[in-house]
Amino acid sequence: MTRVSRRRLLGTGALTAAGAVASAAAAPPAAARTAPLSTDVVIVGAGLSGLTAARDLVAAGRSVIVLEARERPGGRVYGLPLGDGTTSEGGAEFIGPTQDRIAALAQDMGVATFKTYNEGKNVYYRSGKRSLYETDGLLGAVPPDWGVIDLELALVTLGGMIKEVPVGEPWKAAKAEEWDSQTFYTWSRSNSLSGGARFLMDAFASSTLSVRSQEISLLYLLNYAASAGNESTPGTIDRLIDTKNGAQESRFVGGSQEVPVRLAARLGDIIRYNAPVRSIATGSDGVTVTADGVTVSAKRVVVAMSPAIAGKIDYSPALPANRTQLMQRYPMGSIAKFVGVYDTPFWRADGLTGQAVADSGAIDATFDNSPPDGSRGILMGFMNQANIRKLDGASADEVRAAGLESFTKLFGDKAANPRSTAFQRWDNEMWSGGGPVGVAPPGALTAFGPALRAACGPIHWAGTETSDYWTGYMDGAVRSGERVAREVHAAL
Amino acid sequence: MTRVSRRRLLGTGALTAAGAVASAAAAPPAAARTAPLSTDVVIVGAGLSGLTAARDLVAAGRSVIVLEARERPGGRVYGLPLGDGTTSEGGAEFIGPTQDRIAALAQDMGVATFKTYNEGKNVYYRSGKRSLYETDGLLGAVPPDWGVIDLELALVTLGGMIKEVPVGEPWKAAKAEEWDSQTFYTWSRSNSLSGGARFLMDAFASSTLSVRSQEISLLYLLNYAASAGNESTPGTIDRLIDTKNGAQESRFVGGSQEVPVRLAARLGDIIRYNAPVRSIATGSDGVTVTADGVTVSAKRVVVAMSPAIAGKIDYSPALPANRTQLMQRYPMGSIAKFVGVYDTPFWRADGLTGQAVADSGAIDATFDNSPPDGSRGILMGFMNQANIRKLDGASADEVRAAGLESFTKLFGDKAANPRSTAFQRWDNEMWSGGGPVGVAPPGALTAFGPALRAACGPIHWAGTETSDYWTGYMDGAVRSGERVAREVHAAL
Repeated sequence: MTRVSRRRLLGTGALTAAGAVASAAAAPPAAARTAPLSTDVVIVGAGLSGLTAARDLVAAGRSVIVLEARERPGGRVYGLPLGDGTTSEGGAEFIGPTQDRIAALAQDMGVATFKTYNEGKNVYYRSGKRSLYETDGLLGAVPPDWGVIDLELALVTLGGMIKEVPVGEPWKAAKAEEWDSQTFYTWSRSNSLSGGARFLMDAFASSTLSVRSQEISLLYLLNYAASAGNESTPGTIDRLIDTKNGAQESRFVGGSQEVPVRLAARLGDIIRYNAPVRSIATGSDGVTVTADGVTVSAKRVVVAMSPAIAGKIDYSPALPANRTQLMQRYPMGSIAKFVGVYDTPFWRADGLTGQAVADSGAIDATFDNSPPDGSRGILMGFMNQANIRKLDGASADEVRAAGLESFTKLFGDKAANPRSTAFQRWDNEMWSGGGPVGVAPPGALTAFGPALRAACGPIHWAGTETSDYWTGYMDGAVRSGERVAREVHAAL
Repeated sequence: MTRVSRRRLLGTGALTAAGAVASAAAAPPAAARTAPLSTDVVIVGAGLSGLTAARDLVAAGRSVIVLEARERPGGRVYGLPLGDGTTSEGGAEFIGPTQDRIAALAQDMGVATFKTYNEGKNVYYRSGKRSLYETDGLLGAVPPDWGVIDLELALVTLGGMIKEVPVGEPWKAAKAEEWDSQTFYTWSRSNSLSGGARFLMDAFASSTLSVRSQEISLLYLLNYAASAGNESTPGTIDRLIDTKNGAQESRFVGGSQEVPVRLAARLGDIIRYNAPVRSIATGSDGVTVTADGVTVSAKRVVVAMSPAIAGKIDYSPALPANRTQLMQRYPMGSIAKFVGVYDTPFWRADGLTGQAVADSGAIDATFDNSPPDGSRGILMGFMNQANIRKLDGASADEVRAAGLESFTKLFGDKAANPRSTAFQRWDNEMWSGGGPVGVAPPGALTAFGPALRAACGPIHWAGTETSDYWTGYMDGAVRSGERVAREVHAAL
């Protein structure tokens, strides 16, 4: 939560770029709207991947222009206005162990982290019954009966399969075809018998990816878990879902948005906002990238967007078939966040972490999103895909009522009267198309996976979907930006 | 196969529209490029669905402008040039029983039909062994062993499930969630044991939809088969796959392209070619549709395209989330056709129909595409998705060699030396994005299915994907055009 001035948000702050800035890119906006610009590299998208690529290419002495559709940097990293001049996390927010690259970037930007509040018990709400549990992770949530064994066996099996996946290249797994031929739903039903285990495996897919477990291939899920690590620490399901020692362990002081906002400010005027790219034409000596109000010719272009949104650009000549088909087969999740602001984090006094898992109501998972000093309480609830569908077309009042009904069911009557609420859904965000990440339905990775990253002539691909480690996370976005910068630099 | 003059292909022939033509639409092209046009209805896409909608709306007294990205009408219906001034079928080509609406349209256009050549035996090539069989359909292809029983039992089970699907609204089936949670691959493995049965079920998905069986939800497959009928005749798998009494029963004299080309000619100058639509803006009193070189304001717009391609247009304000998400979840198949032209249809003399099914080589299914009088022989081979992937980036010579190797394996050495060959792949066609049809991966229909047809304010949706009966076929395209014309007319 932080106060962000419009000036900083738009990346036109006083900081100047550390590296070289193309002189053409520094031309005044008025000129940009009439004369085509020229640069070494155009980067499409000022999310973390695009900004990181720009940083590295500028540092390597390349001239760069970044074209961003929105009037702000950050993409799926976004500070949601709370109506009083402050913001809270509207998009990606957490950072955890092995997420080294976002950690390094944040440190470089002077953005500190603090531990996610995690003291006390979690709430488990299922079949109309509310109970509390202590342990992190899926196992802790299951009532102590044979369902624990059922789930544990399934997780052990999954864990073994995860180790067989070459991170970032799951199509090379020995059993890739078998695993890519079924949904995670099919696998979980074939490998568990209890309702509790099945519910928690669905909740795992749903809360991690904001899709239903039938939408993703088993192979995709396995790679996603294998991706939750780094070069020296293999990924695991636990690291994906845990708070302590997991991907939700820490948050950013001032909000995750501080990282892209500061990086964008440092890059300065090489970023053009309100410039959605409409077409990329490849010619004999490079590319011509046309956005609203500006046209740029360059030697290379980096498309730093999810595959689904990259597919909206008009490419000429047409991209290779496998890339065209991939972009039709990598749909986004339907993530949404509902926020309640309270005078105090009252659940803490009740011995609760603020974390919950629920099988009914509009909200299926919650976190304590209060500021580091706990000076006020902010409860954040995820609305998963099945739930958000029911709120298609709902009024703001209806969304508020549904969100508070969930909060009250999970945390008691004190949750009923927040100081304010806020709501951010990503599935109708034109420039994201959904969130947190693009997912692969069955059959996509084995037939089209290599097209995720393979450059098409002078067109290079970035974005968290293209990362080996921590795909779907801010860390993956930064890694993809660093990878594509090396790739482009080597090709120039 | 027919000679098509460029003048007719461009729809600028001498025939005048039977109904009213908007005066604005009749303005000379030069004016159109500078001043915005105005009309009752804009139709995006001059495929069969868009043309049919235009025909009906014009007949109802509405002014209409059709904007088409290509320089020709027909969309996925296309006459593939053979290099000598003639064409053969490059896209949708067959017509069969219960396809009443394409039949009526063709009759109205004066395009006659003739029976697909179907005398003699079919070729079955599997595990390196070539055999012949007589009966139409999957069962006839299985060697006479217990595999026949295995497949028959699976087909009986499938047939029972197909009857439980409400055609065009499969998400309303009692078991919709169960059937939409798994791939057809998963179902076929759970419901058959023999390699022969499994191969033929995969071949069914692959040859019908040009996707692998793991890419589609079981529910989608069931609806596709349920859709293969009309209001008085329930759909069946047999009607999908059979030649005699099935969807491949007949062809069009002069080529299927004759139907849209003649209809376009009749509609005349209300169709604008080379006008890909880039944006649709909805305002208080209608829509503004912007295409390359022309902007049209209208009361309503019909987007007569597959969901995947409709998703490339920029909509403002953003479409409802469920429609946005649907368009990310309806990928196209990867159909391709390879054609060999011979002095005679030599396979007929060998007692063969020219139809084959194969498990290896570049071509997995073939048909006799010779002209009605058999004055020369034209063999057509489908290259399915798995095979076409291997030809990504292949040269024309490599494609030709791979195609002729398949033909020779299936029909003998006489196939090795055609007079000429031709090749049409759809998966890199910018304005189709694939073919024959958009398919639903698991989870899409139950969560997003209703968004296929539901109008978004003044934006209406057509295309064969939106049809109840014969979705994926020319008949479905015509039905969708007729349905959307009624819908728009009622709303105006």
